[in-house]
Amino acid sequence: MTAQAQMKNQNQQKKAKTAITPTRDEDFPQWYQNVIKAADFAENSPVRGCMVIKPYGFALWENIQRALDDMIKEAGVQNAYFPLLIPLEFISREAEHVEGFAKECAVVTHHRLEKGPEGGLVPAESAKLEEPFIIRPTSETIIGHSMSKWVQSYRDLPLKLNQWCNIMRWEMRTRMFLRTSEFLWQEGHNAFATPEEANEDARKMLEIYKRLYVEWLAMPGIDGEKTVDERFPGAIHTYTYESMMQDGKALQACTSHDLGNNFAKSFEINYQGEDGNVHSAYTTSWGLSTRSVGGLIMTHSDDDGVILPPKIAPHQVVILPIMKDEDKAQVLEFCDKIAAELKAKGIRVSLDRSDERSANKMWDAIKKGVPLRVEAGMRDIEAGNVVHTRRDVGRESKTVCSVEEFVQNAQSILDDIQKGLFEKAQTFQNNNIQNVANLAEVKEFFASGQVGFVKMDTTLLEDSEFENLASEFSLTPRCMPFSDDGTKVIVGKSY
Amino acid sequence: MTAQAQMKNQNQQKKAKTAITPTRDEDFPQWYQNVIKAADFAENSPVRGCMVIKPYGFALWENIQRALDDMIKEAGVQNAYFPLLIPLEFISREAEHVEGFAKECAVVTHHRLEKGPEGGLVPAESAKLEEPFIIRPTSETIIGHSMSKWVQSYRDLPLKLNQWCNIMRWEMRTRMFLRTSEFLWQEGHNAFATPEEANEDARKMLEIYKRLYVEWLAMPGIDGEKTVDERFPGAIHTYTYESMMQDGKALQACTSHDLGNNFAKSFEINYQGEDGNVHSAYTTSWGLSTRSVGGLIMTHSDDDGVILPPKIAPHQVVILPIMKDEDKAQVLEFCDKIAAELKAKGIRVSLDRSDERSANKMWDAIKKGVPLRVEAGMRDIEAGNVVHTRRDVGRESKTVCSVEEFVQNAQSILDDIQKGLFEKAQTFQNNNIQNVANLAEVKEFFASGQVGFVKMDTTLLEDSEFENLASEFSLTPRCMPFSDDGTKVIVGKSY
Repeated sequence: MTAQAQMKNQNQQKKAKTAITPTRDEDFPQWYQNVIKAADFAENSPVRGCMVIKPYGFALWENIQRALDDMIKEAGVQNAYFPLLIPLEFISREAEHVEGFAKECAVVTHHRLEKGPEGGLVPAESAKLEEPFIIRPTSETIIGHSMSKWVQSYRDLPLKLNQWCNIMRWEMRTRMFLRTSEFLWQEGHNAFATPEEANEDARKMLEIYKRLYVEWLAMPGIDGEKTVDERFPGAIHTYTYESMMQDGKALQACTSHDLGNNFAKSFEINYQGEDGNVHSAYTTSWGLSTRSVGGLIMTHSDDDGVILPPKIAPHQVVILPIMKDEDKAQVLEFCDKIAAELKAKGIRVSLDRSDERSANKMWDAIKKGVPLRVEAGMRDIEAGNVVHTRRDVGRESKTVCSVEEFVQNAQSILDDIQKGLFEKAQTFQNNNIQNVANLAEVKEFFASGQVGFVKMDTTLLEDSEFENLASEFSLTPRCMPFSDDGTKVIVGKSY
Repeated sequence: MTAQAQMKNQNQQKKAKTAITPTRDEDFPQWYQNVIKAADFAENSPVRGCMVIKPYGFALWENIQRALDDMIKEAGVQNAYFPLLIPLEFISREAEHVEGFAKECAVVTHHRLEKGPEGGLVPAESAKLEEPFIIRPTSETIIGHSMSKWVQSYRDLPLKLNQWCNIMRWEMRTRMFLRTSEFLWQEGHNAFATPEEANEDARKMLEIYKRLYVEWLAMPGIDGEKTVDERFPGAIHTYTYESMMQDGKALQACTSHDLGNNFAKSFEINYQGEDGNVHSAYTTSWGLSTRSVGGLIMTHSDDDGVILPPKIAPHQVVILPIMKDEDKAQVLEFCDKIAAELKAKGIRVSLDRSDERSANKMWDAIKKGVPLRVEAGMRDIEAGNVVHTRRDVGRESKTVCSVEEFVQNAQSILDDIQKGLFEKAQTFQNNNIQNVANLAEVKEFFASGQVGFVKMDTTLLEDSEFENLASEFSLTPRCMPFSDDGTKVIVGKSY
């Protein structure tokens, strides 16, 4: 082995220990930022608190969108689009709602720029708006206004609408995907004739989100209801899916709100019933955002970078040709053929044609979390073989087999990875929820530095000591799990 | 016939003459608004100049998006997402660009609301931004900023990015889909090593748009280059597809810009070449918006409402059950079976299950432009037949045939409708472009009230008399057709 080759080897071994520094144990928040950078998902922008979603991160979001959009449409919801700007008067109508959002909204006050006294551009005084607008922090109000026109008779109900759009909430402390001043989401807004139907719908939409998380993102979580203080401003019930990240903190992965007739009253969403009388409608709203990408990263990634569940991965298989200049054409031809065969089986595959060194290609694929890597060089061509490795297991899973066998088995390996990721995360979550009998045990749990949640009687929230504990350890009630019928509450730190 | 039935019949005949009033001939702009309303595509919103895109209109836009997104991806472009807000300093960097957009942009000046002296909400003085932002009127600047970081070496080029997003340009006179303060679009931004590649790309992307218009929206048009005055602010070449509406006015259906290195210089998009030296990159940008929906409506609709090309229609076939209460179940079962068979053939089909009168269902389908209507009632069930009618041809195309035959032929009928719509519009366009030899003939054409465009030597634009004519008849040079190699220019009125 030459000196150079030895150094390369050492570098690789060093990298193999951990492609991302710091590691999760050393500094989880910094690890998170570095994982995103290494995967080329996103970066900060020159607009404070707003991020740029780069192509690889956006491809992931598109896959999430497609899966969820199909489910939403299957539930009889129709997509539509409502204005970005919301009149101040609208946001003011629902008392709790304005309280919740007035403090963090971007305000549009002018509609033209002009040369200022010092030469630069300034908002033109002559183009000052009589009534300013805010950029939507959520759209209950402006959609409520439309619903009041669209709903006249009981025959117009239920009315189920959804929009995919951008949202602005001015955040002081931001973190990519998890909390940004601008983010992307879908927001659903449904209207019903009765409070029972609305409540059932809010539960049903949360069920759909749960399916998305379990079946596509391989993210376990606890579905339940928010406590009163944690409800959406204006809701009578807020349902949530709380997922445990690898540092034991909770991520509110989505929410679904039963708004009762609070917004229906404020916006006069009324209908004439079969009885000939005018009744108030009842509404729900439900949203899932680019935050889900942050949750995905913090659930599955390791110290070498992202690990993506195959069903949502932009590339399910990456083929890494091992080639020298002289055999490049032959190796690429072999790899193209494998790629074509995988594509024919409906597998999303990419082939790294770059002239990068093989080790760099491999590490790039690892850091980007591609579920399954395939290497093929001249030696493999001669034998008709490929070498494949699972991202979730790593080196131990390295397998040599015939091309035919690999193509035949690729989908079942991917299915196995998908299943394994969910099970691993589910086990982690199960192992890190502790049942506690009193607040002393809550204190013991968090004072000891244990990661995870505690589960306690809901009544303990009313004990005045809880507030002290919550403040000391930055705890919040995450949800009252459906599985306990509201008698228990999950408490933990959160994003 | 009872008196009631007679009246019904008369109403239908009256309606059959024209479901939309006024007609195109009577008042084209009002007809356009009423067609949109009758089709339930969109409506004005409480935010001045912004519209609400209703579910049926949005489904149409989603189909356009899907078709175009596939083509864009096939061209090697990757989707991404950039911030909604643009720093003032960015918009100021390119002199022509700021000149073009400063007059019509929404300015964000505060990030919080508070209770004002009179009780209502006002922008909080303590939350005034040091530097205001504008809501993107287009994103060359903020994307240019990212590109300058992403492009380092010639290996990073070409870089091809696209985003689907909302845009804000404060418009004083708005018209649904055609000109609204907020609209939806895709904007592509590509960077290249050489000016030649950039120019070729701008032409290629226009070619893709043309394919979308011809193959999917059945909209003919003239592809060519904009004259200097009509270029995008900051571009060195602007390419366009100008489509003729039924009133003879032009719609700029999309544009593609060769930006030279104007933006690359302003945003320092530089790369190290193979020669080791630093070079400026060259960029393009290209966009297609919800305006296309307006163009689609004004190209194909008639006095009974919208006519949709099958390839882009949310529902390609609508089944209208003709039923009385007592045979409802049986008729619906029959219709469900037909719907399932059409779906199995990949046809988008809807079944109107409402209890509306048959005539109302039929008129609803007509006004919504569903390409093919199928009626089925008890008489048809007994004979195993359906009655089908083409939206583009109307009553004359009414055909009775067996269910089997219909299912077998439905796709080819749809293909025929698609083809027919394009040919009809192409013929209209061809018949309404007049070659003129001098400005006197231009004047004669427009003074006579003829609809359409004139085509003249490009040199005539420099004649000082042209400006007078342009002002008198609201004319603009639409484009210099590629087919004439820049020697001729199309002149007309426009949207």
